Amino acid sequence: MDNFRKNIEVIKKTNASLFGKDFLLTWDKSSEELEMLIHVAEALKNLNNANISTKCFDTGLAVSQFRDNSTRTRFSFASAANMLGLTVQDLDEGKSQIAHGETVRETSNMISFLTEIVGIRDDMYLGAGHTYMKEVADSLEDGFKEGVLPQRPAVINLQCDIDHPTQSMADLMHLKSYFGSLENLKGKKIAMSWAYSPSYGKPLSVPQGIIGLMTRYGMEVELAYPEGYDLIPEVIEIAEKNAKQSGGSFKIANSMQEAFINADIVYPKSWAPYSVMQKRTKLLYANDKDGLKDLEMACLINNAKFKNWECDAEKMKLTKNGNALYMHCLPADISGVSCNEGEVSREVFDKYRIETYKEAGFKPYIIAAMMLSSRFNDAAGLLQFIEKRDTKRIQGI
Amino acid sequence: MDNFRKNIEVIKKTNASLFGKDFLLTWDKSSEELEMLIHVAEALKNLNNANISTKCFDTGLAVSQFRDNSTRTRFSFASAANMLGLTVQDLDEGKSQIAHGETVRETSNMISFLTEIVGIRDDMYLGAGHTYMKEVADSLEDGFKEGVLPQRPAVINLQCDIDHPTQSMADLMHLKSYFGSLENLKGKKIAMSWAYSPSYGKPLSVPQGIIGLMTRYGMEVELAYPEGYDLIPEVIEIAEKNAKQSGGSFKIANSMQEAFINADIVYPKSWAPYSVMQKRTKLLYANDKDGLKDLEMACLINNAKFKNWECDAEKMKLTKNGNALYMHCLPADISGVSCNEGEVSREVFDKYRIETYKEAGFKPYIIAAMMLSSRFNDAAGLLQFIEKRDTKRIQGI
Amino acid sequence: MDNFRKNIEVIKKTNASLFGKDFLLTWDKSSEELEMLIHVAEALKNLNNANISTKCFDTGLAVSQFRDNSTRTRFSFASAANMLGLTVQDLDEGKSQIAHGETVRETSNMISFLTEIVGIRDDMYLGAGHTYMKEVADSLEDGFKEGVLPQRPAVINLQCDIDHPTQSMADLMHLKSYFGSLENLKGKKIAMSWAYSPSYGKPLSVPQGIIGLMTRYGMEVELAYPEGYDLIPEVIEIAEKNAKQSGGSFKIANSMQEAFINADIVYPKSWAPYSVMQKRTKLLYANDKDGLKDLEMACLINNAKFKNWECDAEKMKLTKNGNALYMHCLPADISGVSCNEGEVSREVFDKYRIETYKEAGFKPYIIAAMMLSSRFNDAAGLLQFIEKRDTKRIQGI
Repeated sequence: MDNFRKNIEVIKKTNASLFGKDFLLTWDKSSEELEMLIHVAEALKNLNNANISTKCFDTGLAVSQFRDNSTRTRFSFASAANMLGLTVQDLDEGKSQIAHGETVRETSNMISFLTEIVGIRDDMYLGAGHTYMKEVADSLEDGFKEGVLPQRPAVINLQCDIDHPTQSMADLMHLKSYFGSLENLKGKKIAMSWAYSPSYGKPLSVPQGIIGLMTRYGMEVELAYPEGYDLIPEVIEIAEKNAKQSGGSFKIANSMQEAFINADIVYPKSWAPYSVMQKRTKLLYANDKDGLKDLEMACLINNAKFKNWECDAEKMKLTKNGNALYMHCLPADISGVSCNEGEVSREVFDKYRIETYKEAGFKPYIIAAMMLSSRFNDAAGLLQFIEKRDTKRIQGI
Repeated sequence: MDNFRKNIEVIKKTNASLFGKDFLLTWDKSSEELEMLIHVAEALKNLNNANISTKCFDTGLAVSQFRDNSTRTRFSFASAANMLGLTVQDLDEGKSQIAHGETVRETSNMISFLTEIVGIRDDMYLGAGHTYMKEVADSLEDGFKEGVLPQRPAVINLQCDIDHPTQSMADLMHLKSYFGSLENLKGKKIAMSWAYSPSYGKPLSVPQGIIGLMTRYGMEVELAYPEGYDLIPEVIEIAEKNAKQSGGSFKIANSMQEAFINADIVYPKSWAPYSVMQKRTKLLYANDKDGLKDLEMACLINNAKFKNWECDAEKMKLTKNGNALYMHCLPADISGVSCNEGEVSREVFDKYRIETYKEAGFKPYIIAAMMLSSRFNDAAGLLQFIEKRDTKRIQGI
Repeated sequence: MDNFRKNIEVIKKTNASLFGKDFLLTWDKSSEELEMLIHVAEALKNLNNANISTKCFDTGLAVSQFRDNSTRTRFSFASAANMLGLTVQDLDEGKSQIAHGETVRETSNMISFLTEIVGIRDDMYLGAGHTYMKEVADSLEDGFKEGVLPQRPAVINLQCDIDHPTQSMADLMHLKSYFGSLENLKGKKIAMSWAYSPSYGKPLSVPQGIIGLMTRYGMEVELAYPEGYDLIPEVIEIAEKNAKQSGGSFKIANSMQEAFINADIVYPKSWAPYSVMQKRTKLLYANDKDGLKDLEMACLINNAKFKNWECDAEKMKLTKNGNALYMHCLPADISGVSCNEGEVSREVFDKYRIETYKEAGFKPYIIAAMMLSSRFNDAAGLLQFIEKRDTKRIQGI
């Protein structure tokens, strides 16, 4: 429990507080707040490893709303809620429906009479996901102020059209663990690269989340993609600003190879071009099935021009000592495994398979830390209370 | 906790007991039983507001079976179960299937080996929902007597073809809170009125639940609907009998305006005519899709004759001081918001929006009170035990 | 609690241990292990009946994956998890999809960061279900060894293509309870017989589970089926070997009547021929819908030749004193009730209805015992800790 105590010391010293706040975008949060979050997540992991139950709610709900398929995040959210004593109740309104106005306002209140957390995944419609989350948050704020809700549940972004903070923060914890400290990330080069996939329409939120977050730690962040596969301009601006402030750098290349040169970390991952996502959103709203089919066809044909954007052993040789850390949010499109030609060769993936699993393993803890920090004013005090209470997670042993 | 203690005093004094009993129809219960239920619900709310955990089951299941869509009641049931420490397990047999005889008897037992509560929504088929609930209850009774089940789970009606007691009891709690006491409801006029909706086939259980319950409190209950939109005759009889016994009155008008005159409370809400529901049930049983389409068409055309049955500002002026309380079970069909023309104008709804949310907020507590009262012989004793135990709902604060 | 103490004494004395082990097939387990399991299940039942909470996990997940429909086993699994304090999280990847290789390895790890138990039903594809469970188990083993998972969740077979151990063990508990002891089963004759059903494609796992398990207790096991309705040859060999070792016998007849003569127990149940299941699996893999229809038609026509394989009063007269115990895993195809002509006559079923319900009632406890024994090294110590702790399941009474 030495590590636990070190984490508590850091949390105690911080002036940061996420109490009463939603978690929608990492760039809405101060660096102190993000650092506190990581320490809370680590402390929860320490307690769990020491078989100390971290339950801090005797009753209460954590509502999840997945407007897109999810296994990994669903289980991470469920684990996080369970770790703190909350019961998950899923809100399933059908994927196709995009609620607005009174419907959102009303439903947000109706599901929240005894709810502490509302976790939302909404990444299908560009321009809609983040907006929807803010609308839910405003509705909850209103319901709380008007005396409808006895508490104000915190909204946690489980992936929107702009950011995927539970993923990028878990990734950051993985990097901290791999390189020893956040301090050690200074000057490290990370290549966030587009990669070929035989599917289309993958959200932009992972690459955007990575460049929006990693630029804050003095890293040399290089974003690479084939011409036309741009990300949202606003996030590019944020990455540029962050890099300047943190003493790192942010560059865009149009070559995976170029980005890989001397990289300490590579993150090859497919996404759909910004402009395609804009068109797709319009077609989805119009329920234009033929239009969607045509767009998919055109997009797949264009994708196919860039099959050489595969993270293979040859390209990995370009990285620092030929030994960069490979990262992925999973599931990866592995050539010869999950598809004929994909984002990464089997050889490279197999070498880093266990690392990608460990990367994912931080997610339940970072989500639990987001939940805890938004609901408890004194996170350090609570964690010490939990340690002292010493209820065994597995009992009778 | 003063209010808590007052509630306990009342519960202690009552001779009423709901222990070991199902909750299917409010008119099966004595007024003392209903009043006790409200005090238990209020006591649970008091404890929750004081951050005292009301968990009274360390393990155990609450089974929910929704044979029709539900968000509000689903979350209320989940919250109620969670509040008491029960885990919800959903029984999903598909909506279309209507089980009978051995299937019901067997399934009821198979899901109940460690189950305390079985909550059922079954409001689609006139003549079937309530019957189904009784069949489940009989099966559980039989299983318990035969030694199959170690306990007899209580069945709670989450809306059937006849009554919607969790809604009407939450509505009653709202009225008690709004007007100060049940005593104050005496002589108050409530207009339970049909209202236009562009959809069809809405259940009769809400208006029936309201007239069946509110007539017990000395209120002047006026039911209004266009000719042909009758409710089930048996429930009309119950309302008449209740009104006579309670010193109130029960009238039927064929004009929303007439019902609104001098009303203290208005409850404008669409439903399908009794005779249409009878035809619809036959067609549903016969799986006659063309017949169902024809019936829907005919019914919508008929509905359209009554578009002026909208609760608007003009009609609200007819009510007591132009200031009656507007109620709705939600979601309402709001003109210009959720539909072009609907049950209520945007202006009226907006004025009472927060009140309708608060109305809904009583539901988790009234359901929890039904669960608790059916499973604990000494509700007052249990609540005092919970207060004294003083386990914090949110811990470490 | 006398029975509880007797159970504890037996568990204490055994050298058997299921700690850290999956439960996939009964014939992989020693007789001591199976006997221990029954005593743990009985002890859990004793505690539950005495209103003592058996919660031994303060937090933690039990993942269920049902790749085929299930109500009974789903609720038994949910009850078992709840009894021990675990929260069920369902993994729903769609029924049609058969995952392999990296997908299985990855998903198994992704759902298990805070998971204690993974329960799987996969009985549709001959040659696939058991293989899939082993693949999941290997993936978890690998993830645990590589430091991805902080604990190694145990896999529990909730029905595969080969065995249905939670059913057969619950059946064994029922026989123990009915005849007084496992010792008393020696020399008893059980007829595991095919029976006619108007449906097709029912799994082989129940009859295989029964002959693979009951042959271990010195019983005279007679398997009966119409020519061509063979089971998997490997399981037949296991049954033969078991019978020899236990001093019982194992015979195959082609007549329900012959098998029923002098039987103490009859278990008439439909299944599809082994060879049909082989063909069906190939067609399912090939997604050959026409082929599947043709096979179903041919199979139903063949089934119809054996409508006289119904367990009726006439045939029951052949059994020991005309009074054999009728068993079924439920739901049974009851002639004149759930179908026109089926596995059992209404008369026979009605006589034994309550017994079949009681038979099913052992399932939550045997599953909980499997969970507990796989996660706790000292089951007796844990159960004594639970008794001494004496937390009430229903509190305040």
